[in-house]
Amino acid sequence: MSLIENLNWRHATKAYDPTKKVSEEDLQKILEAARLAPTSSGLQQFRVLVVENPAIRAQLVDGSLNPECMVECSHVLVFAAWNEYTPERIDAIYDRTTEERDLPQGRFNSYTDKIKEMYGNQSKEAHFNHAAKQSYIGLVLAMAQAAELKIDTTPAEGFDNKRIDDVLELEKRGLKSVTLLYMGYSDKQRDWLSTMKKVRNPMEEFAIRIK
Amino acid sequence: MSLIENLNWRHATKAYDPTKKVSEEDLQKILEAARLAPTSSGLQQFRVLVVENPAIRAQLVDGSLNPECMVECSHVLVFAAWNEYTPERIDAIYDRTTEERDLPQGRFNSYTDKIKEMYGNQSKEAHFNHAAKQSYIGLVLAMAQAAELKIDTTPAEGFDNKRIDDVLELEKRGLKSVTLLYMGYSDKQRDWLSTMKKVRNPMEEFAIRIK
Repeated sequence: MSLIENLNWRHATKAYDPTKKVSEEDLQKILEAARLAPTSSGLQQFRVLVVENPAIRAQLVDGSLNPECMVECSHVLVFAAWNEYTPERIDAIYDRTTEERDLPQGRFNSYTDKIKEMYGNQSKEAHFNHAAKQSYIGLVLAMAQAAELKIDTTPAEGFDNKRIDDVLELEKRGLKSVTLLYMGYSDKQRDWLSTMKKVRNPMEEFAIRIK
Repeated sequence: MSLIENLNWRHATKAYDPTKKVSEEDLQKILEAARLAPTSSGLQQFRVLVVENPAIRAQLVDGSLNPECMVECSHVLVFAAWNEYTPERIDAIYDRTTEERDLPQGRFNSYTDKIKEMYGNQSKEAHFNHAAKQSYIGLVLAMAQAAELKIDTTPAEGFDNKRIDDVLELEKRGLKSVTLLYMGYSDKQRDWLSTMKKVRNPMEEFAIRIK
């Protein structure tokens, strides 16, 4: 199936069958697609928390706009972004890159000096806001990969970020939560959106040709 | 090819062959993948400007971090997001949705009233920031679709947003620019990144399993 066919197949699932689990093999493919996300300056400034444990999910139900999905889906992925940009974090990425590419250490110094200076002049809030945007790239690649595997998902912004950050101890990991991705298999009886037509702006409104 | 194979195939292309053009058929597929992007509350709060005209691109070279790509690639896509959330914009989307789904007008009023109130309490800056995040979803779907077609791309944040907004008259369209996507066919002689290994955080660092 092509990407377009997969995107037409998917929808934001409203109810999951709690008896069906995503296999570890499929989960790994979904995580791999997110891991391959391109990011600004190649900083890979987001991570994915994989939550299966029902006791932990029970703590996240309050404050979630999709409480049933939180309980009934197979896995909850939490996309979380760097809470700040530091010289150490930037160096760690570029040190790995030079090493894996067998390039001389410091090969990218002129570039990393520039971005360290740029981020050094910004607030932590601006850092997180920028990092959060990159995490949407991972979110949608995970969703597209799930659709390729005919696994249902629900992307969600509506939740209590502070609660998630606390329960998953994100601050000590240097992260803050951005989005959730519920995944599993739709319960078609209760998933009211599953039979509805996908509606998008028509192409002539969406794409503006500059002549 | 699977999504993962396509993501491994792609890289942020550093130089394009100016003699090779993306076909209209392929361009339509790339735009279609972006059009199918899921967005927060289904608001589809971003658009894509398609820029081919060399005279217009010449006006955008200054202030671009990739001036050669701006001139030499086949097409420049500009992802631009709503500059504010208004009740009229929210109603227009939901009116279309109820009509296309053959639902009674006003079917989603309880939901749209809620989001109108929420956004009514936020600044225009917060609106744009939120809309901009959604546009990353479209950006990466366009990039993934291009990779499926073996078309090279370069996503870019580094440019003079004000200049782009002015030249493309985005304010009067109710939009502000967020990212660019250069697309075309790599000039392998000058595209220094094309032979380099793709480096990502290892899976055990990227995905954090909560036990």
